[in-house]
Amino acid sequence: MVLLYKYDPESNFNNQKKFGELHQFVINDLKKVDFLIKEKIKNKINYIPEVASHLFKAGGKRIRPMLCLACARLCNYKGLKHINLSACIEFIHTATLLHDDVIDESKKRRGVITANNIWGNKSSVLVGDFLLSKSFELMTEVENIEVLKVLSETSSIIIEGEISQMISNRNMSTTEDEYLNIIKSKTSNLFATAAKINSYLTKSKVEYKNALDSFGMNLGTAFQIIDDLLDYKAVEKDMGKMVGDDFKEGKITLPIILALRRSNQIENNFWKKTIQNGEINPGDFQKACSILKKREVFDDIYIRAKHYGAIAKDALGIFDNSKEKKILINIVDFVINRSF
Amino acid sequence: MVLLYKYDPESNFNNQKKFGELHQFVINDLKKVDFLIKEKIKNKINYIPEVASHLFKAGGKRIRPMLCLACARLCNYKGLKHINLSACIEFIHTATLLHDDVIDESKKRRGVITANNIWGNKSSVLVGDFLLSKSFELMTEVENIEVLKVLSETSSIIIEGEISQMISNRNMSTTEDEYLNIIKSKTSNLFATAAKINSYLTKSKVEYKNALDSFGMNLGTAFQIIDDLLDYKAVEKDMGKMVGDDFKEGKITLPIILALRRSNQIENNFWKKTIQNGEINPGDFQKACSILKKREVFDDIYIRAKHYGAIAKDALGIFDNSKEKKILINIVDFVINRSF
Repeated sequence: MVLLYKYDPESNFNNQKKFGELHQFVINDLKKVDFLIKEKIKNKINYIPEVASHLFKAGGKRIRPMLCLACARLCNYKGLKHINLSACIEFIHTATLLHDDVIDESKKRRGVITANNIWGNKSSVLVGDFLLSKSFELMTEVENIEVLKVLSETSSIIIEGEISQMISNRNMSTTEDEYLNIIKSKTSNLFATAAKINSYLTKSKVEYKNALDSFGMNLGTAFQIIDDLLDYKAVEKDMGKMVGDDFKEGKITLPIILALRRSNQIENNFWKKTIQNGEINPGDFQKACSILKKREVFDDIYIRAKHYGAIAKDALGIFDNSKEKKILINIVDFVINRSF
Repeated sequence: MVLLYKYDPESNFNNQKKFGELHQFVINDLKKVDFLIKEKIKNKINYIPEVASHLFKAGGKRIRPMLCLACARLCNYKGLKHINLSACIEFIHTATLLHDDVIDESKKRRGVITANNIWGNKSSVLVGDFLLSKSFELMTEVENIEVLKVLSETSSIIIEGEISQMISNRNMSTTEDEYLNIIKSKTSNLFATAAKINSYLTKSKVEYKNALDSFGMNLGTAFQIIDDLLDYKAVEKDMGKMVGDDFKEGKITLPIILALRRSNQIENNFWKKTIQNGEINPGDFQKACSILKKREVFDDIYIRAKHYGAIAKDALGIFDNSKEKKILINIVDFVINRSF
């Protein structure tokens, strides 16, 4: 077996730089998080860091750990436990990505070939389990029962969301509300936890905890809505993962939900053939995109995302003005306007 | 989708009765554990209890939760948290079984068709994740950081064992020591945790904790050695899972390790064809069993298992004589002499 393991935190920075201001603000803490991740995936079984670091090395936006670090500053947290919590959140996220790629049979993620495509499904399942277990080890090191309860519950909720999504696949009667519940469960909840988790260490008042929860939930919802839009709209090199994957897998995301309600009979037959029955011919993805464009789906999705973004911004209203508050508010627009 | 969920704790009892004395001793607590498991897998998404209860319903020996309950009595624990811990240990075990069946592509487990074979790999991966997350929720309810550290570390170690086993598959140079390290990691460690975990609640002296750890480790090692033997020796209806699975999957277990070191050139070519290259023809499993018999592998494996059994029994020497101590010592022989 060729040992590919050469972990280099710097390699992530290109992607993170796209989050410019936020990245600059937390850069010193983020280096500590990267170092801790590197330490935690070290193992006497070389195979584990090899597979795990494949995904960490490829980077990703690192928005969840950065959010956790910035919110620690907003809560005026002075200790070091936010480093653990930030790494823990990235571990939970990465574990779900590994299992996601098995479930979706994905070929590419973050611009590189997926682990399951190199090492097979078996290793992705087990290394995902390993990362999930390590996330629990990281939590327990924080030695705070309330923090543990929030994080372990978050982990269950994410998986419930993944299961709901699996069940809704190819089900054309899925409503926008059902879709929202799924993405809140699988995505927004971890954003909310990242945002509020440090407030349990600083023993912040409940209204501040709730404000951070609301900020994270709505930012996460906007983030996922845009992610699902970009699967139809982005250029592949910007997106990292392969554009059109959701379409091929018959995932019922917002672009499809809106299109289904605006299509004529001919278009509806097309969705039935492709999304419901999974019969996809060359050129069908381009055809799907042109229907979405014709039915003005993209514009309306931006309006939806901005709605959740506006709630997120207002949620932080109870915090005094500060540099960190300004940066957190700015990432809302950044998340909505990104092309990757 | 047909809703199969009809959880009936009584249905497990046939298997558990095989552990007679131990089962009778913990029966009241075990009913509480069964009830808690039932409560914890309830979910608004019907699909989750449906898949999860498929495996719980099929029963299994329930040796780990019974061990946990009996050892709580040995530690003179008076509270109710041992019910949580016992359920938590069964959840960790069941999660690994679900993922195991995906990895091994198993068709049968505990005498019934595996979940992955009914609902597909995707749902086994996700419901396994769900159970693993629920096990962490159960741990946090105990509100004891030391207990959490032991259990979360155990969970990582099990997965490391599974990964080591996957890597050793079809590798004929695997030594008996490497095999022992794998089974200690994937099996014995959870037995050790089941045995000792309550001693953290009773704040037992370290020598009692270590004694329980040693008892569990060695009992678990004997248990897994016999499990691996039965995959060649048992009658399928007794074993629950399909006999010959390890052979088909090229797993390097003790029967193969010993046979490889005692075979002549013709037999070695047979192992190379079947275990290393995975070329299995009708009748090959029977041929494998006859080589094991001819080379007296079975008898020597019993001697090996008894060695670990003896260490387990002696480990409890520092405890005063009691009914629970006697029952725990008796299960060692029961584990070794079972035919299922």
